[in-house]
Amino acid sequence: MKCVDLNSDMGEGFGAYKIGDDAAMLDIVTSANIACGYHAGDPDIMVQTALKAREKTVQIGAHPGFQDLIGFGRRVIRGDSYATIERMIAYQIGAMQACATLAGHKITYVKAHGALSNMAQEDDDLAMALAKAIQGVDKTLINMVMPGLAVERAAQKLNQPYVLEVFADRTYADSFNVTSRKIAGAVIHDAEIAAARLLEMLETSTLTTTSGKQLKVKIDTICVHSDEPSAVLLARRVKEVLKLNGWTVKAF
Amino acid sequence: MKCVDLNSDMGEGFGAYKIGDDAAMLDIVTSANIACGYHAGDPDIMVQTALKAREKTVQIGAHPGFQDLIGFGRRVIRGDSYATIERMIAYQIGAMQACATLAGHKITYVKAHGALSNMAQEDDDLAMALAKAIQGVDKTLINMVMPGLAVERAAQKLNQPYVLEVFADRTYADSFNVTSRKIAGAVIHDAEIAAARLLEMLETSTLTTTSGKQLKVKIDTICVHSDEPSAVLLARRVKEVLKLNGWTVKAF
Amino acid sequence: MKCVDLNSDMGEGFGAYKIGDDAAMLDIVTSANIACGYHAGDPDIMVQTALKAREKTVQIGAHPGFQDLIGFGRRVIRGDSYATIERMIAYQIGAMQACATLAGHKITYVKAHGALSNMAQEDDDLAMALAKAIQGVDKTLINMVMPGLAVERAAQKLNQPYVLEVFADRTYADSFNVTSRKIAGAVIHDAEIAAARLLEMLETSTLTTTSGKQLKVKIDTICVHSDEPSAVLLARRVKEVLKLNGWTVKAF
Amino acid sequence: MKCVDLNSDMGEGFGAYKIGDDAAMLDIVTSANIACGYHAGDPDIMVQTALKAREKTVQIGAHPGFQDLIGFGRRVIRGDSYATIERMIAYQIGAMQACATLAGHKITYVKAHGALSNMAQEDDDLAMALAKAIQGVDKTLINMVMPGLAVERAAQKLNQPYVLEVFADRTYADSFNVTSRKIAGAVIHDAEIAAARLLEMLETSTLTTTSGKQLKVKIDTICVHSDEPSAVLLARRVKEVLKLNGWTVKAF
Repeated sequence: MKCVDLNSDMGEGFGAYKIGDDAAMLDIVTSANIACGYHAGDPDIMVQTALKAREKTVQIGAHPGFQDLIGFGRRVIRGDSYATIERMIAYQIGAMQACATLAGHKITYVKAHGALSNMAQEDDDLAMALAKAIQGVDKTLINMVMPGLAVERAAQKLNQPYVLEVFADRTYADSFNVTSRKIAGAVIHDAEIAAARLLEMLETSTLTTTSGKQLKVKIDTICVHSDEPSAVLLARRVKEVLKLNGWTVKAF
Repeated sequence: MKCVDLNSDMGEGFGAYKIGDDAAMLDIVTSANIACGYHAGDPDIMVQTALKAREKTVQIGAHPGFQDLIGFGRRVIRGDSYATIERMIAYQIGAMQACATLAGHKITYVKAHGALSNMAQEDDDLAMALAKAIQGVDKTLINMVMPGLAVERAAQKLNQPYVLEVFADRTYADSFNVTSRKIAGAVIHDAEIAAARLLEMLETSTLTTTSGKQLKVKIDTICVHSDEPSAVLLARRVKEVLKLNGWTVKAF
Repeated sequence: MKCVDLNSDMGEGFGAYKIGDDAAMLDIVTSANIACGYHAGDPDIMVQTALKAREKTVQIGAHPGFQDLIGFGRRVIRGDSYATIERMIAYQIGAMQACATLAGHKITYVKAHGALSNMAQEDDDLAMALAKAIQGVDKTLINMVMPGLAVERAAQKLNQPYVLEVFADRTYADSFNVTSRKIAGAVIHDAEIAAARLLEMLETSTLTTTSGKQLKVKIDTICVHSDEPSAVLLARRVKEVLKLNGWTVKAF
Repeated sequence: MKCVDLNSDMGEGFGAYKIGDDAAMLDIVTSANIACGYHAGDPDIMVQTALKAREKTVQIGAHPGFQDLIGFGRRVIRGDSYATIERMIAYQIGAMQACATLAGHKITYVKAHGALSNMAQEDDDLAMALAKAIQGVDKTLINMVMPGLAVERAAQKLNQPYVLEVFADRTYADSFNVTSRKIAGAVIHDAEIAAARLLEMLETSTLTTTSGKQLKVKIDTICVHSDEPSAVLLARRVKEVLKLNGWTVKAF
């Protein structure tokens, strides 16, 4: 059976501030990565997002990041020990668990956000801090990681349940990393192209890099963005194309 | 059997900032109320305080407050809905649970901090938001409350496990509230007087107010402060006097 | 000559978060109250708003509030001394002055935001802290206040330059306070009604309260909001009606 | 005439948190670098520190850092544009100017803190953002920089007044950078050794590096730390030795 999950970041407002079209995305995706109040989100938004996800039977996960509201978690912050980072991730997971519980829902996975995620892909110790935070809080929580990088290795070392994700709108380098946004063509804006690419990736379990190299990958989930205006359209089209081609889009 | 618990606020530093003598207090008290990062504390301090408490077999609880680091949670903040307050308390409890789990410990109770606590004593809806936050996250968590006030009524209404506390160094008004710090004599600085007073309260299950009225109270735990220089001495003397008089000081 | 100023809150985003349609409002108003990073705004937004205001020759003022990003400065915060509040207002004014200087602009007035403003209207000591903060930083800064309340009295006592403002979309009680938003009709949503009311106020120098009482007021500036979708339309219509009736809309 | 300034970081508490012995240091140093509320400090502390400095006729400067209270401004934060950094520095300078004005004092210089300072020493664009922020707010403000690095070059390019500082307790590499704290001997704990070294530096206008190389430097000010217990003793001894050898310790 051909199954894949569709995930998106959610609940990224703060206080009076709104961002993204969560209501629309929750009708499309099967997993919602909920910001935990450090780079975005607050307890109100966390509970409300979990409530809406429950109503739409969307799976939820904690989406921890650096404590960096002004930078939306996209700034690289160096100087904390790995133990400190492990603890601040655990803090956010616990906070999200409690908010999910209030909403009658339950988180099943964790996906790191922004700079924290990018740094963990490259740094085995940081990837291990992330994996240990998740496992330390709850052994059953699934670690959502990018394939072929430090984050996957850490999950494997800990014998931790994990799923592999690819980005719907990004191209890949031979290193398994997404290519830098600064490089022309690194971000795919055309929904048709993105959908066709993902379909091929899924059908062939292969990720074709910008150099033409073919990397074998098992794809469990596809990340679609939520914070750009065109995001909803792209996500919707990707889902349609997958379904038209016999894929079942459902939570892992 | 004559048993009583001794509790104190802990883990109230932040980043490079230290406050209180937690190491000394953990040798005296049997319950540690750990700040949850909103009015004081951070994930590092929360985990480390839980670790030290575990080593010394001290029971731990979450100590949520307003998100008010600059005011140390002592400022009254009005304007949030009760639902919002319920969620921000749940957030902190969950965060503390995860930090305790990382430390191999487990929280068994919740005690509100500062202005949040003071306001909940007087406001039945706020007391209910607090009680519901605790119960919503985990039905087995004990609500630590002051006797005779809205917070006790809320715990009773929810059929929630709760314990009653008195302050070691404060006098009481007929309303069951502590008398205002602005009134001369409201804070008891003399360890001998405090200890004698507590002993009498415990032996008679009676709280004598400043007007001479006698209020019946079941006392489960005594709060000793940790953020003043003399706090350790007072706590130590209170414990000695209780033990000398046949009381067992242990966690509820 | 019939002159009046039109002021609006601006620069209320934060990091990645946007709020309000500043570009549209800067084409209408003659004074921009710029948030100073405590309840909204950040140094980037402060400088950019000052730059845009300069390009459109819009006068700017500092718009300090409580340090309450999550509550957008609308929550009442009690517990700080008046000296502390004076200093935190001065801090924000100075920060805004520096950002204005970077932008080649200069603030000429200060208007308090949200709960800080509401509280100062009722509390002579708080109003004095606000007035002293303004005067303490720069004696030439104008204090923008509501007429007939503690804030006007404080400005008078300090012999400080001040201007009087009325709200375009609010009704007034006999006490000179705006009526509570909770009362039906307290907020005027119809641009024609708002414009007609303001015209009458200006022509008669009289504020008719909800009880029918007529309060004499000298009106220097009219506050139009910016954070609701209909705000731009209402502001534009108010300006049109005033101009059609011979009023010059320009900075005080 | 042999003159040198002694500077130290001050006002690094926050809310209820205290750090360092400012009262003692203000009796020793001739320049106080006051934290501006981003990595430490708050408006109350800023005004009070300025007041105390005025009483003791100690010169004051703004000491801006990254907005990183939990990391005390010591964490490297990357991802902001240089324009954003320029603005956030200007914001802090302006805030400090206003607080100084309230205290009847006036800042005459700016010294960057922690990671911001370290990064600016190595990055010409960042050093320029810092220098431009200072000049943009007030052309007369002196930029306090380390010699031979990007920060000095930036001040020179802008034709900006600047002073050169050396650290009392650090050794230097051939690059003019202080040697890493991770290297044994990088921090000088012995007051006699520190004082003797500084005296030689001043007498010879030469900085001898760990490799033995001699770098010519004009030394305007010596930085003594304030946040370690031994800091006061070291600062006091350095001052004594300098005075005994005919040096006048006074503000630049």
